[in-house]
Amino acid sequence: MRHFVQELDELRQQLLTMSGLVESGIYTSVQALVRRDRELAQQVLKNEARINQMEIEIDDMAVSLLALQQPMAADLRLITSAIKINNDLERMGDLAVNIVERALSLMRDPEIKPLVDIPRMASLAEDMVRKTLDAFVKKDIELARSVLVSDDAVDGLRDAIYLELIRFMQDRPEAIPQAIDLLFVARNLERIADHATNIAEDVLFLVQGVDVRHHAEVHNT
Amino acid sequence: MRHFVQELDELRQQLLTMSGLVESGIYTSVQALVRRDRELAQQVLKNEARINQMEIEIDDMAVSLLALQQPMAADLRLITSAIKINNDLERMGDLAVNIVERALSLMRDPEIKPLVDIPRMASLAEDMVRKTLDAFVKKDIELARSVLVSDDAVDGLRDAIYLELIRFMQDRPEAIPQAIDLLFVARNLERIADHATNIAEDVLFLVQGVDVRHHAEVHNT
Repeated sequence: MRHFVQELDELRQQLLTMSGLVESGIYTSVQALVRRDRELAQQVLKNEARINQMEIEIDDMAVSLLALQQPMAADLRLITSAIKINNDLERMGDLAVNIVERALSLMRDPEIKPLVDIPRMASLAEDMVRKTLDAFVKKDIELARSVLVSDDAVDGLRDAIYLELIRFMQDRPEAIPQAIDLLFVARNLERIADHATNIAEDVLFLVQGVDVRHHAEVHNT
Repeated sequence: MRHFVQELDELRQQLLTMSGLVESGIYTSVQALVRRDRELAQQVLKNEARINQMEIEIDDMAVSLLALQQPMAADLRLITSAIKINNDLERMGDLAVNIVERALSLMRDPEIKPLVDIPRMASLAEDMVRKTLDAFVKKDIELARSVLVSDDAVDGLRDAIYLELIRFMQDRPEAIPQAIDLLFVARNLERIADHATNIAEDVLFLVQGVDVRHHAEVHNT
């Protein structure tokens, strides 16, 4: 059984490594956007290839743990959670790539406005990714709950960004395509935060054994 | 072992039922949008509650199959695919709810334009959901591949809708908020198609044992 415990540790460790890559992808994608830097954009695309490779490896590791070790109860739940978290992390990586695609599209035209709230939203989203994986590894309920609270802050920033961009488009109709790119950047960050929230809910389920998915009131505690 | 075979059948059956609910949710959400019908919108919200309930049930069923039956190789892959497909279906249900939220927002103001391409995109997305689940149950590789081709058609419609909406916003800046709602409806339909594509890729992996995730060239065959 010691072997099995080590393999579970390895699985957790791999998920932590992957979340580090994802976090760095989010950060770099928004830096590429803010600094209009093609080289940073390329880094995110390279990073994404590694994330995709890791997703397949972690998936294979989880499935072979299920097959060879035939775990019971708590360990089984841990491994199926790992499969879901892996999937959420990979999708966050995709969303960072979406941001980079918008950044590259925006670089084709002159800068339309300085970006303030978008980097703020990105920084919140990165924190959520880190906290949510820490909560998973440490089985820390309070940390998982704090992620649900951050999600509300992200939604607040998104609303502010939307209103600002609508006014901007009305004032400067010629810059509507660029404003739409920024709108989708905000939407991608919101979705990254949603994935972190999914993971936090999985962690709460894993630790408490209570299914908090689809119970919106949890977000308000 | 006969018992186990029956339970696997039951799991497939449950996923088919859930995909029927999801397909109907997509259809009804776009009907609510096109007809500006609040009652249809309410139906989607009720439907979503059933989808969420089914997601939890299917998940529990899959996990207890893993725990009690300790399946090997092919069956194991089938069950872990079922967990992923379940997750994709639930997210499609969420996206139908997003569409309904945009529809309800649009109903607060007078109609801005007749909708032609959005219902067309929705109908493609519904077909993809149905085909992809049929492909899963029948292990039909050709059907799974046809879903990847449909995804390209969906992306084409999305591009047409975007260009049309940008021109619309430039002509009628006062209707920008409504045009943004429509832009997000198109984006939600695109994401529904992406989830169907994910499932089709899982089916190809399941049947062929070859991992086609993250290999964009498959989309072009």
